[in-house]
Amino acid sequence: MRIDELPTPALLVERAALEANLDTMSAALPGARLRPHVKAHKCTALAHRQHANGHAGFTCATVRECEVMAAAGLGADLLLANEVLDTRRLGALVRDGARVTVAVDSPETVVAAAAGGVREVLVDVNVGLPRCGCPPERAGELADTARRAGLEVRGVMGYEGHLMLVADPADRARMTGDAMALLTAAAADVGGEIISAGGTGTYVDNTWATEIQAGSYALMDTAYGAVVPFGQALSVLGTVVSVAATHAVVDVGLKSLGMDHGLPTIAEAQVWFCSDEHTTFAPETPVRVGDRIRVLPAHVDPTVVLHERMHLVDGDVVVETWAVDMRGW
Amino acid sequence: MRIDELPTPALLVERAALEANLDTMSAALPGARLRPHVKAHKCTALAHRQHANGHAGFTCATVRECEVMAAAGLGADLLLANEVLDTRRLGALVRDGARVTVAVDSPETVVAAAAGGVREVLVDVNVGLPRCGCPPERAGELADTARRAGLEVRGVMGYEGHLMLVADPADRARMTGDAMALLTAAAADVGGEIISAGGTGTYVDNTWATEIQAGSYALMDTAYGAVVPFGQALSVLGTVVSVAATHAVVDVGLKSLGMDHGLPTIAEAQVWFCSDEHTTFAPETPVRVGDRIRVLPAHVDPTVVLHERMHLVDGDVVVETWAVDMRGW
Repeated sequence: MRIDELPTPALLVERAALEANLDTMSAALPGARLRPHVKAHKCTALAHRQHANGHAGFTCATVRECEVMAAAGLGADLLLANEVLDTRRLGALVRDGARVTVAVDSPETVVAAAAGGVREVLVDVNVGLPRCGCPPERAGELADTARRAGLEVRGVMGYEGHLMLVADPADRARMTGDAMALLTAAAADVGGEIISAGGTGTYVDNTWATEIQAGSYALMDTAYGAVVPFGQALSVLGTVVSVAATHAVVDVGLKSLGMDHGLPTIAEAQVWFCSDEHTTFAPETPVRVGDRIRVLPAHVDPTVVLHERMHLVDGDVVVETWAVDMRGW
Repeated sequence: MRIDELPTPALLVERAALEANLDTMSAALPGARLRPHVKAHKCTALAHRQHANGHAGFTCATVRECEVMAAAGLGADLLLANEVLDTRRLGALVRDGARVTVAVDSPETVVAAAAGGVREVLVDVNVGLPRCGCPPERAGELADTARRAGLEVRGVMGYEGHLMLVADPADRARMTGDAMALLTAAAADVGGEIISAGGTGTYVDNTWATEIQAGSYALMDTAYGAVVPFGQALSVLGTVVSVAATHAVVDVGLKSLGMDHGLPTIAEAQVWFCSDEHTTFAPETPVRVGDRIRVLPAHVDPTVVLHERMHLVDGDVVVETWAVDMRGW
């Protein structure tokens, strides 16, 4: 099938760029050094590719992601890198044979993990991003609390998410070092083998973590494109539905694009604004009604969740179609 | 069931606010004066409520919306208020007994409508929003083209979307009048019975259209809340998963909130930022890990499409659960 036959909008993944991205990252962080984050693609077919590249452990952001990964045979070592108050569905996965480790950052989340039947945890440490994570100096005490509750403490995690898009490489490396000094000190207090951290933006800089939780590198977006050397594999295919004297309109809009990082990009065009099902743009070279064009999203994760499927393409040929099967909660 | 038993994030619709919104709008624009736009809720259960309030015709933004509405028995008079180049699925609906009228704004979209088996069209006129729509002075000529192609031309549509959030009522009314002067002039050239326009922001001001395409009024969002007197029925229920000295974190983020109109709102709190599955906020009164709180989205339409279902609630009691069954394309 050719992309001209797809209903639009349609999520496209350029095969060559995807495979190059997967191979580049697996060469930099082989085997257990990378714990791919599935939240960026929410696609077990793509996770199988990462598994085939040598990565057996995965990072998840939601209970649903853990459930679907386990059902797909990818549940050998799942880290839910998020705090959860109702862990009953995770406990059910453990009873069914999956290995699920959950993040805890408070006595309440420790109690919740034990109550739901989860057996293994990481202590989540705040390393500078104002979000989840206990203060570094409280990590050891929380690990003790977890052990008293009967939980195995595998180590620590701490996400330096505030540094992912720092443009200057030297600044980013220095700030990552400062954040990881907090995490390694906490790790000494907590014990365990794992120091889990990092992401696509700091995969080179973060030499302190034992494993990197990168996800966006596989598909990429224009925001990450400014800071790391991975190729833009993801785009949203649209049809030009209207052409006026000053602008044109493609049927890709707020309902097929994540907008929190700003407007999408169209080659040889200035993007004016997005509506629910449209992007209005000023083309630098003429376009015609019916033309198919690629729209590049600014943020990969919230774009992917808007689509039921992604089409792996080689140029204009659809090679495979994969379900985005980890959506929802 | 009580909302405490729902997995979070969960989309909530306050029953009293929804019913008041539906009744207020139906009183202002009874029967065929309102053609409810389903893109804002994408839910046939909610569309059935609008139908029960006396509105038999509906507005859609996608082919999928038309298909699901027809399958739900709500296909008596569907307007696809959007340009479509491949109308074969719409033609199939017509052959199966639905009435489907599609917008056209170019010779190409006229040819596409006829080729796919659609029989009725509206001429879409640009009334100031730089998006779809032919120039007003070309509308009559395009209607002639459509009739020569064997299509029934039911009239015109023209969406003054750029005026929906104009804050000053007098400015909004005057600008709506200017936009509708263009549309009524085009209507005179085109012929037909229908002048379809408007939305939640201009439902009072737009006295020129024969029917108003309002959708957001049913569920509402904080952006529209600043300009029209409908109640906020929609919220996203979250669980507080982490509490720090300076901030707290709720499990509602970019994947459960439309972000193009900016950050969501939380009562008695300052919202700092959103991540994929989190909103970080500074509460004015203390919150605890495990608390359930409501997050109010800034834009209803892109929020609803992120959820598989919406829960109709009366306070903290879940009255009904409705599928968001018109997602995708």
